[in-house]
Amino acid sequence: MRIGFQGVLGAYSELTGRRFFANSENKDFEYLGFQNFEDIFKAIKEDKIDRGIIPIENSLAGSVYKNIDLLKAYDLEVSGEIYQRIEHNLLAKKGTKLEEVNKIYSHWQALAQCEKNIKLKIPNAIPCEYFDTAGSAEFVSKCENKDFGAIASSLASLIYDLEILIPNLEDDKNNYTRFLIINKFQKNKEIDNSKIYKTSIIFSGTSMPGFLYSVLKSFAERNINLTKIESRPIPEETWNYFFYVDFEGNLNDTKIKEALDEIKEISPDLKVLGSYPKFEG
Amino acid sequence: MRIGFQGVLGAYSELTGRRFFANSENKDFEYLGFQNFEDIFKAIKEDKIDRGIIPIENSLAGSVYKNIDLLKAYDLEVSGEIYQRIEHNLLAKKGTKLEEVNKIYSHWQALAQCEKNIKLKIPNAIPCEYFDTAGSAEFVSKCENKDFGAIASSLASLIYDLEILIPNLEDDKNNYTRFLIINKFQKNKEIDNSKIYKTSIIFSGTSMPGFLYSVLKSFAERNINLTKIESRPIPEETWNYFFYVDFEGNLNDTKIKEALDEIKEISPDLKVLGSYPKFEG
Repeated sequence: MRIGFQGVLGAYSELTGRRFFANSENKDFEYLGFQNFEDIFKAIKEDKIDRGIIPIENSLAGSVYKNIDLLKAYDLEVSGEIYQRIEHNLLAKKGTKLEEVNKIYSHWQALAQCEKNIKLKIPNAIPCEYFDTAGSAEFVSKCENKDFGAIASSLASLIYDLEILIPNLEDDKNNYTRFLIINKFQKNKEIDNSKIYKTSIIFSGTSMPGFLYSVLKSFAERNINLTKIESRPIPEETWNYFFYVDFEGNLNDTKIKEALDEIKEISPDLKVLGSYPKFEG
Repeated sequence: MRIGFQGVLGAYSELTGRRFFANSENKDFEYLGFQNFEDIFKAIKEDKIDRGIIPIENSLAGSVYKNIDLLKAYDLEVSGEIYQRIEHNLLAKKGTKLEEVNKIYSHWQALAQCEKNIKLKIPNAIPCEYFDTAGSAEFVSKCENKDFGAIASSLASLIYDLEILIPNLEDDKNNYTRFLIINKFQKNKEIDNSKIYKTSIIFSGTSMPGFLYSVLKSFAERNINLTKIESRPIPEETWNYFFYVDFEGNLNDTKIKEALDEIKEISPDLKVLGSYPKFEG
């Protein structure tokens, strides 16, 4: 099985993917890094990989909005979820002193998650967006500049031979990321009735008054537990929005089927991304 | 009147602020640039400025999530809104050829808004986050490196003596940003009954099932038009969310008062940010 993740060797996504598939019966896995999230979606479409693992939400920085947009744009199934605790480290070339660091490269979500500590501990350093956390570590290791820092995992410090100048740079230790597993839609999926499931859907409405209320009514009246709701702009329709929603229950439940049938009448473009076992830490 | 914006001279925020206050009776304005959004909120608290202008939402990239978080954290009033069309340009030092550009600096929202065109037209350039669009133009103008580009307004190209390598680099021409005017809460504010108003609120709920539905019910039953809803994580409460909502109507309307009274019973931490005239292009 070929599993795609965003980033280079040592990325949080790769580590999380290895955790997710660790108990799988299949032991033959190949992990492939992609430069950006959309490349993962494309590679699944083109059968170059079998699964993708993508971050969807961080407990501090919020949703990974790009991936919510991609879930709308591509016709792929969500087949699993897993939570990962994130520990960030400030890395630099061996011998670099903290006060020499002028630029700090990392993914913007990682920069956001360390924003306060960067201001406090390295106030003169300029945060610079890089496509990937582990990639920023690789970049810093290859650069001539000695005044560059990177924010990445401790594994990345080992892989790219960097020094940890500040461990646990994250502003808040309650820093968790939720990842989704995506793939082409599978037919005849089995539901394990001993497990709690979650289901993810996407829908849009052309006008706001009462629209979202009507959708949520279908869930509330059946006591269905919403675990996430996110609104995003529809670029082609200025100031119209689509919604990404997660709720508890699976597509075999009668009350879930009923709720989705009702919602489809209000929002004909309803897209069911899939049902998958809820992650139990 | 002292008005704070994020960025340096030539920032979109400054231009938009000048448009907003152009028809004001008061003609004595001073515009002050701040390095980040939070500095604007702090300066208002400390009476260093009278008003702030902050982007809240872009029609393509979505909410400016940082400012939604700051509206929750600070006790300030929202007293106005204005929409601004955004036109991005790729700028570089005079004489630089397009194929020489290796790094493109700008605010991450601007980078997101030009993502496709960057990939298409300058595929080898690495996007680098900078705190501000006009600031990235200033940075590029001062750097020795000739392989740096910036994404900023055409005004910034004039101010910092840069060449426009690609005009209208934005992926979508329907690129509008909505800005809010913020200040300390004003007492005895007058409502102009000849105008349509909007009101902004923030509230949170400890559990999701039925909570958001109950809140939206208070609006739907009174036919109140919601124009925006956004959920954001509460960092101190892992996987709990707060909501930012805009709707049409002002605080003097009976039905608005009733709706807010109902919501306050479900969500005691309801915060009314203010009512302000709806922007009419």
